[in-house]
Amino acid sequence: MDAAEFRRRGKEMVDYVADYLENIEKRQVYPDVEPGYLRSLIPEEAPEEAESYEDVVKDIERVIMPGVTHWHSPYFYAYFPTAHSFPAMLADMLCGAIGCIGFSWAASPACTELETVMLDWLGKMLKLPEDFLAGTEGRGGGVIQGTASEATLIALLAARSKIVKLIQADHPDRSETDIISKLVAYSSDQAHSSVERAGLIGGVRMKKMPTDSKFSVRGAALQKVLEEDRAAGLIPFFFCATLGTTPSCAFDCITELGPICNAEKIWMHIDAAYAGSAFICPEFRPLLNGVEFADSFNFNPHKWLLVNFDCSAMWVKKRSDIIGAFKMEPLYLKHDHQESGIVTDYRHWQIPLGRRFRSLKMWFVFRMYGLKGLQAYIRKHVGLAKEFETLVRADQRFEISADVVLGLVCFRFKGSNELNETLLKRINRARKIHLVPCQLAGKFVLRFAVCARTTESRHVQEAWSHISHLASELLQELPH
Amino acid sequence: MDAAEFRRRGKEMVDYVADYLENIEKRQVYPDVEPGYLRSLIPEEAPEEAESYEDVVKDIERVIMPGVTHWHSPYFYAYFPTAHSFPAMLADMLCGAIGCIGFSWAASPACTELETVMLDWLGKMLKLPEDFLAGTEGRGGGVIQGTASEATLIALLAARSKIVKLIQADHPDRSETDIISKLVAYSSDQAHSSVERAGLIGGVRMKKMPTDSKFSVRGAALQKVLEEDRAAGLIPFFFCATLGTTPSCAFDCITELGPICNAEKIWMHIDAAYAGSAFICPEFRPLLNGVEFADSFNFNPHKWLLVNFDCSAMWVKKRSDIIGAFKMEPLYLKHDHQESGIVTDYRHWQIPLGRRFRSLKMWFVFRMYGLKGLQAYIRKHVGLAKEFETLVRADQRFEISADVVLGLVCFRFKGSNELNETLLKRINRARKIHLVPCQLAGKFVLRFAVCARTTESRHVQEAWSHISHLASELLQELPH
Repeated sequence: MDAAEFRRRGKEMVDYVADYLENIEKRQVYPDVEPGYLRSLIPEEAPEEAESYEDVVKDIERVIMPGVTHWHSPYFYAYFPTAHSFPAMLADMLCGAIGCIGFSWAASPACTELETVMLDWLGKMLKLPEDFLAGTEGRGGGVIQGTASEATLIALLAARSKIVKLIQADHPDRSETDIISKLVAYSSDQAHSSVERAGLIGGVRMKKMPTDSKFSVRGAALQKVLEEDRAAGLIPFFFCATLGTTPSCAFDCITELGPICNAEKIWMHIDAAYAGSAFICPEFRPLLNGVEFADSFNFNPHKWLLVNFDCSAMWVKKRSDIIGAFKMEPLYLKHDHQESGIVTDYRHWQIPLGRRFRSLKMWFVFRMYGLKGLQAYIRKHVGLAKEFETLVRADQRFEISADVVLGLVCFRFKGSNELNETLLKRINRARKIHLVPCQLAGKFVLRFAVCARTTESRHVQEAWSHISHLASELLQELPH
Repeated sequence: MDAAEFRRRGKEMVDYVADYLENIEKRQVYPDVEPGYLRSLIPEEAPEEAESYEDVVKDIERVIMPGVTHWHSPYFYAYFPTAHSFPAMLADMLCGAIGCIGFSWAASPACTELETVMLDWLGKMLKLPEDFLAGTEGRGGGVIQGTASEATLIALLAARSKIVKLIQADHPDRSETDIISKLVAYSSDQAHSSVERAGLIGGVRMKKMPTDSKFSVRGAALQKVLEEDRAAGLIPFFFCATLGTTPSCAFDCITELGPICNAEKIWMHIDAAYAGSAFICPEFRPLLNGVEFADSFNFNPHKWLLVNFDCSAMWVKKRSDIIGAFKMEPLYLKHDHQESGIVTDYRHWQIPLGRRFRSLKMWFVFRMYGLKGLQAYIRKHVGLAKEFETLVRADQRFEISADVVLGLVCFRFKGSNELNETLLKRINRARKIHLVPCQLAGKFVLRFAVCARTTESRHVQEAWSHISHLASELLQELPH
């Protein structure tokens, strides 16, 4: 395919994409296929000879679409949203065309520099403390990670490296493995599975902290376990706080936890993967109070800020902490400017070496929506969640299982877990909408997350009347 | 921006991309900007109000392009190639539009299933042993990782987890940290920095093996260090072999190393990040002989197989090894089919949770080039490297520093390292072409990697006459 054909096919693809998104409501949100459906639809081997583009494109509807879960359908209420917008898609086209690999400043200066400035822009939108911004003279700064899982892992590894160096400075004879064997990290028992996984990867103990009735970790709980662990000869070094947990969008109490972490020299990382986007609204910014105590902070614009996956924004107060954990300088990656101290080589900030020009999509989205447009988008989703909450509360058969703070509503039948499991199964088998469950305090709970950019009040009303109808059917079948 | 405006702007962007790529030769391959250039060109904060698309697009040439290193210019010969093709860009547009997050089968069955089948297609193109393929009943299979760094890390972590379980099965009283403190991994002293980094992250010793005159690790070298390390009470558990090292595209002797690893129950991972693409050609496939001894194998179609970044293909013989290292099952990620044993949930295979629909671009590229088209592409690049090698060899002032096997030529002045450093500086400062250096056996060496899809003989000839001219200038300035 040459550039001339790409002009033609690219424009056809733009239309296909626009058609797909304009008509996404008409597609069944969750597919009917059984595991293994796809293999039999295509050949067992790649073709020897080139095929025509027409043949490939025909197969999108025949092979791919029947097996797609449509995350951008307004009938999709599962997991958390994944962001999606036209400006982000345009920027991604440009990103693909430039196709640079931005592992160092020299590998493509624009790729690195736009990223640093976009993370400053975004940090200012969130009113992050100045310490987290790069500016022209800051010691902190931001970076785009692929996912929140990677941000948590990077923070944990940086904290591990820092505590080992700190202890070895006083006890040069203590081996790294000996120190690591005594380390202990903490997170909420509501924290995402990726936090526990970061502990596994880093080879350190990870203790899950109990939460209060609002599913928040409180300062007293941390204080208690720290005393026990210090007494047992362990070395607390890392606390991963969650703002907006995956099960119920609960918020750890970082105004209590932060001062304890600071006093005890424990690295506090904040994972606000979903909720972070909301902090650009003044009315939700108080949820971030306490961030000033954190060493690192992360959230996913690719969840709720209209920037397509992947774009997980992470800031650190001292970039030397994160760089110091990994820095390696083979000759083929050295360049003239790096000794100047004023360039950023993002390869030292992340697990992979390669990286795409992802800040372009932030730049397009921030400019084409403006801060006000982004705030309006967040508020619309929160409003839709509140609308759904009101519908649930008006139905005596149901209960709300956790405070509705942002775009997630946790609700359930007043009844057994089995009953709720059956309801969820029926909802998903009906294929009209798609939800996933969670467990809260031993209860099986349904999660209703406002996800798609195009979700409107009518979709929420429809979703509720559908759920309510299935609920009535189910209850009628029960023996009284 | 609504779908109607996206139709218009998307088509304009397609033309911009086609224009950029058709005229990329006219742009200076390496930018003139100084560190910090970009910040002053744009506002300090995101706009409050939305801006027009015209304003954003105008800034591409004003702000971004002056700071881009043009990796797809035929004057770019630095690092290794990063892949780029029109079919891959079209598939990426579709990927962005579908915008699903494929962490589990249920999250989008097509995303998972196409990936499994594409990795089988690619495995067959490489003539990988059957064990590495998923098929319908295989115990192995492939996965798309973001980068080779992540593949190496995942392999090391899986191996770490496996050896710990194995030892604890016989010695249930031995703690994980005690075992990990005795583990030792190995790689070539020519291995990529990411391999050493994987050891750091995993908290295990990583020993660099000496290489022979061809920069290859040989069996005898491994045998020797294993005996020493076992005698010292260490537990060898992981060997990362490299096929096509970054400095000189050298090949570790896996036909010697593999049997040793198998006999000693050491996990052998093969990193063929760059060279792997060439193994689709029968004449280069012998370089992969010995893969049958490996536990895991990885290479980057996003380097040299026309599939845009990111797309790093990894295969394992036993997928239970890799899944077992990380499996976590929170309720919100469970789905009906997973207990059936016939679905793949790729989140257990990788560091991140989220993942894009990256197999679409493999599918588009494999079909639109066909195996023959892909082979022709590899052969063309190797031919261009051989052409450059011939030019260097014909000049008595220069020497070839390592065998030219694929698309990389390592060469230098017959003279001091300082002289070669000066030559490289002048080459890069002239901005006509872009190269990076490496170090081979203490010598400063220039690397000439055939990178761009559109590089032709005339570009290679031009590049050499330019280098030769700068060399003459430099030599004339020297005192005799």
